[in-house]
Amino acid sequence: MFEEGAFLKKEHGAGNVYDFSLGNPNLQPPENFRRALQNMVTSLKEGGHSYMPNTGYPHVRRSVADFLSVEQQVAIAEGDIIMTCGAAGALNVIFKAILDPEDEIITPAPFFVEYGFYAENHGGKLKPVTTEPDFTLDINAVAAAITEKTRAVLINSPNNPTGQIYSRESLFELGDLLNARGKELGRTLYLISDEPYRKIVYDGREVPGLFTCYNESIIATSYSKDISIPGERIGFLAVNPNASYREELLGGMALANRILGFVNAPALMQKVISSIQGACVDVSVYARKRDLLCDGLSDFGYEFVKPSGAFYLFPRTPDPDDVKFVRALQKELILTVPGSGFGGPGHFRIAYCVGDETITNAMPGFKRVMEKYR
Amino acid sequence: MFEEGAFLKKEHGAGNVYDFSLGNPNLQPPENFRRALQNMVTSLKEGGHSYMPNTGYPHVRRSVADFLSVEQQVAIAEGDIIMTCGAAGALNVIFKAILDPEDEIITPAPFFVEYGFYAENHGGKLKPVTTEPDFTLDINAVAAAITEKTRAVLINSPNNPTGQIYSRESLFELGDLLNARGKELGRTLYLISDEPYRKIVYDGREVPGLFTCYNESIIATSYSKDISIPGERIGFLAVNPNASYREELLGGMALANRILGFVNAPALMQKVISSIQGACVDVSVYARKRDLLCDGLSDFGYEFVKPSGAFYLFPRTPDPDDVKFVRALQKELILTVPGSGFGGPGHFRIAYCVGDETITNAMPGFKRVMEKYR
Repeated sequence: MFEEGAFLKKEHGAGNVYDFSLGNPNLQPPENFRRALQNMVTSLKEGGHSYMPNTGYPHVRRSVADFLSVEQQVAIAEGDIIMTCGAAGALNVIFKAILDPEDEIITPAPFFVEYGFYAENHGGKLKPVTTEPDFTLDINAVAAAITEKTRAVLINSPNNPTGQIYSRESLFELGDLLNARGKELGRTLYLISDEPYRKIVYDGREVPGLFTCYNESIIATSYSKDISIPGERIGFLAVNPNASYREELLGGMALANRILGFVNAPALMQKVISSIQGACVDVSVYARKRDLLCDGLSDFGYEFVKPSGAFYLFPRTPDPDDVKFVRALQKELILTVPGSGFGGPGHFRIAYCVGDETITNAMPGFKRVMEKYR
Repeated sequence: MFEEGAFLKKEHGAGNVYDFSLGNPNLQPPENFRRALQNMVTSLKEGGHSYMPNTGYPHVRRSVADFLSVEQQVAIAEGDIIMTCGAAGALNVIFKAILDPEDEIITPAPFFVEYGFYAENHGGKLKPVTTEPDFTLDINAVAAAITEKTRAVLINSPNNPTGQIYSRESLFELGDLLNARGKELGRTLYLISDEPYRKIVYDGREVPGLFTCYNESIIATSYSKDISIPGERIGFLAVNPNASYREELLGGMALANRILGFVNAPALMQKVISSIQGACVDVSVYARKRDLLCDGLSDFGYEFVKPSGAFYLFPRTPDPDDVKFVRALQKELILTVPGSGFGGPGHFRIAYCVGDETITNAMPGFKRVMEKYR
């Protein structure tokens, strides 16, 4: 994606290509991040770049735990946290620790493209299930998909690619389901929440805390999107302090973090984020971009569920063949991603974490392509 | 290891525990690293922490390639390099890309403890082979271990835990062997060199360049040891430009870097190391520590091969049970690692990347334990 975009930009000039293909935030990191980084680099003590425990610096894990305790309304300790190389690193560590060969991970579709790889890396299998027409959870679909091979349900809220947020009620229902079916099957069924977009929400919406909804739960997240530092690979995982196998899980995950080759989350960035817990870019900027995009596309006849969070729009394609439709947009130098890759055929993903002018200037192209289908 | 050491230090006071258990360099990063980091943080442009291609920033890969071209005496291009989360990340990426289920990786013993995990992570199997009494390569042992399941030979020179360097002649011999047997078996046999200690060598020794010895070769390395920044997780892999499947290898490894959850090597550190190619701590300090340790232990009757590189000593244990011997040292508050874990039973590893006073103050304990065996 990255390379293809670069190629087109070289050919046509960067300003003439409208690249909505990547979740690479265009906002700059907030001022307190930049200050914290400067200060940290200036004041680094001896050994500031050395190895630390594979789980991360104790003081960093403590500050993350303190922040998370408030967010989740559950007392979380330093020992419940492992610092990771982003949420992608966290998910691989979690899967390595919990999956037996052929184990299944259920995930509501559409879902983040990489999940299938992450499961397969560790001998597991991703099993997508349908959601409601507005992309909220369909608990019956999850229930129908549970087998004696199920190990976990993986959710992503706010969702990439739909921007949907799952309600507290639906998480409680999901927790109850996993609890009941886990008892029947004699197996712990985990609920894993990948939530790097938690702070990027609109219209006063909130992302409910997972840990009060279900005990056998694990959070994977990163600072990539809320602080706009995805290239730095810093995030963490948190195990619910009330999980039945809390200690075994954390032991296994610490080992997995080491042997998968992450070893530890990058030292300097651990220390930087520790001092700015809760920091976030100005989300109203993304809200404005969302409105700009939604208003424009709606006028041209595009159909979509207006996203409540993240920075993606997932409209229907007027052509049942979403790859073909995305190619038609590409001829207008508009780069988007077919929904099929996300388990959402008949749709396409627009990442609107781009400059306003990209959105504005792409509008005539979006209009022309849609007009061919009317 | 890390945690056990921390526990003993808490109990007895840090100054009274002699911790030789970890390859965590005690030297501070060189001044040019610190300056480069300061400058980079001050001058970071917009998007300085964004995603870049999964393989790394093009300009960073270019500067690595330029440096490596001189070191290896082979013209290496930006496209032959993938920036990774340290050498551990590089090895996992390489194995993910080249291993089929049940494939075997031959490695001369003693070997770095993690190799077995790295191979198993991706469905492979580590197959250790013996070395000569001075820990140099035993080509016949490698030859005898090759089967139709062999995919690669993994070497580590200077070696952890022995400090041995493999000669150019032996690498040529090894290359010839792999070439001949690969043809017979109708399979490409790779030679992978894990070389984070390349710059840490003594007595005028040099580490021969791999790429002129054998075409089907891959380098994995990091800046952890030579710049003393192991916590930052920055390294790279390089594919021999003359490798038969160069393009397929690099494509597979770029994908592996992404889907294993590394995504990319940390952005800021990529840019920092790019500007200080060739930087290294003052190796004469490690040489002094080596001599201090070797002279002392030799006087007490310890037997060992004096290391030519890295910062490890791998003496024989007077007790055939090396775990028992290491426990006896631990009672003297001297922390070392049994050789069995490295596939070198009857030995133990001393990491001497510690303060001089740790070496000096541990001497009476080393003496007392040895005396019990005389």
